[in-house]
Amino acid sequence: MSAKIGFVGVGRMGANMARRLRDQGHTISAVCDTASGLAAELSSELGATHFERLEEVTATADIVITVVTDDQAQLDVFSTEGDSLLREATDTIFINCATVSPATHGEIEKRVHSVGARSLEACMASSIPQARQGSLYLMCAGAKDVFDDVRSVLEDLSSDLRYIGPAGTAAQVKALVNMVMNINTVALAEGLGLGQALGLDLDVLREVFSQTGANSQVLKTDGEDMQNRDHECYFSAAHAAKDSAIAWVLGCEQDLHLPLSSATKLQFERLCALGLGNQDKSAVAELTFRGRHA
Amino acid sequence: MSAKIGFVGVGRMGANMARRLRDQGHTISAVCDTASGLAAELSSELGATHFERLEEVTATADIVITVVTDDQAQLDVFSTEGDSLLREATDTIFINCATVSPATHGEIEKRVHSVGARSLEACMASSIPQARQGSLYLMCAGAKDVFDDVRSVLEDLSSDLRYIGPAGTAAQVKALVNMVMNINTVALAEGLGLGQALGLDLDVLREVFSQTGANSQVLKTDGEDMQNRDHECYFSAAHAAKDSAIAWVLGCEQDLHLPLSSATKLQFERLCALGLGNQDKSAVAELTFRGRHA
Repeated sequence: MSAKIGFVGVGRMGANMARRLRDQGHTISAVCDTASGLAAELSSELGATHFERLEEVTATADIVITVVTDDQAQLDVFSTEGDSLLREATDTIFINCATVSPATHGEIEKRVHSVGARSLEACMASSIPQARQGSLYLMCAGAKDVFDDVRSVLEDLSSDLRYIGPAGTAAQVKALVNMVMNINTVALAEGLGLGQALGLDLDVLREVFSQTGANSQVLKTDGEDMQNRDHECYFSAAHAAKDSAIAWVLGCEQDLHLPLSSATKLQFERLCALGLGNQDKSAVAELTFRGRHA
Repeated sequence: MSAKIGFVGVGRMGANMARRLRDQGHTISAVCDTASGLAAELSSELGATHFERLEEVTATADIVITVVTDDQAQLDVFSTEGDSLLREATDTIFINCATVSPATHGEIEKRVHSVGARSLEACMASSIPQARQGSLYLMCAGAKDVFDDVRSVLEDLSSDLRYIGPAGTAAQVKALVNMVMNINTVALAEGLGLGQALGLDLDVLREVFSQTGANSQVLKTDGEDMQNRDHECYFSAAHAAKDSAIAWVLGCEQDLHLPLSSATKLQFERLCALGLGNQDKSAVAELTFRGRHA
């Protein structure tokens, strides 16, 4: 008998993870989202039940996957009062996929343990197409036995699956990945912006970057988009600002001087303040190309 | 009849370029360096003549390759008074390989034209082993006919040869390559330094970086060295500081706000102020790993 899986939070990531698991033969039993229209639609697509209350998801699923938007939403679905996934949760396994702070993952694990349930943090370093195709880069943390017990589900979602360590450590690694990625993104935006101001051919410049010490993964994903002002959203500037802040707090807590991390946080916050937070992180180039923004 | 080639500036880069050209059947006729011992030794190795005066190099060579240390040295060898490569330079072609500012390349071309000679800027985005093996990444700028006339020499020095545009533009591209490379280097140093402070396994962290949006060329060249404090010099912190300053000046001239470029310049300057300028640029991690430097 395969486990019944519930989904809480079915934005584009969550919905596509649910579709992928259904395609792999899993039973999606329950769907819940504050956006009830989205949840109803996906339930009908997947043959699941749409619930308005979190406790009903827990009651009808063996494994509950949460893919919520931020720390507050993650704490809310595991609220210690009112409607909550924690209600009657003995024996439930929760897999929490939102990008939230390491401290939040620790707090959630504490709450889950207090009701006799178990949880795993599963941080995704990939985006929507990978969710749909089951090729996520998935970094997990929490108790190793929970990881082993839900391994078959995790494997169906991911092409790279990695157990990192105790609760919070996967979020730390992800925060560092995104910190370095975001800094490299702003670096690229500065290089291309200055290149354009100098009148250089940006196609040539990007090609030279790709063949030298300036090469990076973000050059592949964001370089051409920066040049063409194509900021269709894969990883939003608002997300980049949020992740930069998570990393910045970690640096402050560790009493380290990390000037590029700080400056990158400010650039993405500036972008959000200009109303561009819902564009792709490549839109940070709007700040460094002359004449695009004041 | 193959052209006679003179070399001015035979530090490790220049000497290995001369050796490579000799191996490829070119005639190295003249060698000159302010470090006269180096020049004498290399002349004897290559069967060239060692000259103390620059004008003697011009007098005996058809093509003069200069590989000097900085802007001042580049301007000095093309001095408009006293001993100079410009003396009786009609018909000489100069190929200038130092990393100097775009403005200096423009000034040199002006001086060279004023005596009826021709020059080409050839910026190298590679290091000593590539010089010896003739596998430099070579970006050239200046008049296209000069590039075409010395193409066979350039091809024997490089595995990637590229004509960029008018004088100064190759130096601009190189400044941008190094700017982005140096920012990515400091980004990596911040990520690994914070990872260590959090108690994460840095082997795992580097591997995750390599498989995600945090990947970069500097992760390959500098990541392990940062972790192991192995800062044997391939590209010195002092060079990184100098190049960061060139890019910073270009940004200021263009009136662009490039916060990461500025912050990176300050980090490498700080490293130099701590007496670590002669170590590899990977030593910037000494500033971001807890307990390495105050």
